[in-house]
Amino acid sequence: MRINVMADILQANDRIAALNRQVFDGNRNLVLNLMSSPGAGKTTLLEKTAEALKGQLRLGVIVGDIETTRDADRLESHSLPAVQLTTGSACHLDANMIASVLGRIDLASIDVLIIENVGNLVCPAEFSLGEDLKVMVLSVTEGDEKPLKYPAMFRESSLLLINKIDLLKHTNFDLEEAKANARRINGGIEIIDISCITGEGICEWTTWLSSCHREKFGSKSRA
Amino acid sequence: MRINVMADILQANDRIAALNRQVFDGNRNLVLNLMSSPGAGKTTLLEKTAEALKGQLRLGVIVGDIETTRDADRLESHSLPAVQLTTGSACHLDANMIASVLGRIDLASIDVLIIENVGNLVCPAEFSLGEDLKVMVLSVTEGDEKPLKYPAMFRESSLLLINKIDLLKHTNFDLEEAKANARRINGGIEIIDISCITGEGICEWTTWLSSCHREKFGSKSRA
Repeated sequence: MRINVMADILQANDRIAALNRQVFDGNRNLVLNLMSSPGAGKTTLLEKTAEALKGQLRLGVIVGDIETTRDADRLESHSLPAVQLTTGSACHLDANMIASVLGRIDLASIDVLIIENVGNLVCPAEFSLGEDLKVMVLSVTEGDEKPLKYPAMFRESSLLLINKIDLLKHTNFDLEEAKANARRINGGIEIIDISCITGEGICEWTTWLSSCHREKFGSKSRA
Repeated sequence: MRINVMADILQANDRIAALNRQVFDGNRNLVLNLMSSPGAGKTTLLEKTAEALKGQLRLGVIVGDIETTRDADRLESHSLPAVQLTTGSACHLDANMIASVLGRIDLASIDVLIIENVGNLVCPAEFSLGEDLKVMVLSVTEGDEKPLKYPAMFRESSLLLINKIDLLKHTNFDLEEAKANARRINGGIEIIDISCITGEGICEWTTWLSSCHREKFGSKSRA
């Protein structure tokens, strides 16, 4: 007897992800699955995003980490509704983990829910959480060849944020080469250069967010 | 019927790792499992290490990547014997992958074999490859809280190399806090600050390597 364990796990995951999506749609939430390597700057980006969206769209966050509640603590100090998920040893979030915390966040009072995945450039790409879109962050200190070496995540993402652009001059990161590599893997990927230090690109990113929300729900305000 | 798939996989892995270790010991190889996030600088470190060890210890490398043979190509241009392993979608190397390439590298002509794992701060920590020691690289652009958020790899490692120390002044990375965090997780971990750009710490690192080799085999030269 041979069991295809992985196919089975992914099928179960997709079933729960579809249920999560029903809940999100019912609450008029645009949901993003935010993925990157450890330390690419996801949490800082969320802090900046919360500031930039103030008065426009109501942001909520689910944060996944192996251990510690540091990220949620950081985000709550920005009065952002944040739920921390600690995965123990799991290297990615899955749909069931998300389903298990949906009762802890007031989805009806949120326009955009961003799920910050575990820092990992490999495993999160395979597991749908019920999100509308996948977004990934690549920081310039990580190297411009990363799309070729870790293609799955770049292939799955609608938007690539190239972060820490303020550090570009201190690295040998070739920005045009990085973009060309990302587009070799995913011809349709959108790309925005950002810096959470200088603020470069943050407005372009929140404009992208707003337009995705408008596209899904027709208008910014609730009926 | 309930099967503990993960325990089973790890047990099989450990069995093959023990066989790998016999091969390494028979060839008088000191073997390191080098782990980090994507882009922390493992391949550049190996280039610098090869230069620094020239005339002292003969280095060989097995490089694991999801896709592409870029790293092995880079290393071979430094006349370093390098074998590339592409894992397809696997997020870490395992003992069986290593066993499958041992015939492609002349172990008898190598003193130190460094296995560059897939860039991932989570999954590689669980899988022994048959190595003597685990070494990890954390770059200052990744953040000083990483030992607390991804404890397993820090717990398993004998040595932590804090890399890109030349970029320290451009980041908010607290070096002392990072070291304190690593020691909270692993009281016995050794730590060396390095920069592959300025060369800082490279000599200390190769001295560490030489002393580990001497400790395992009694003397630097072969009988």
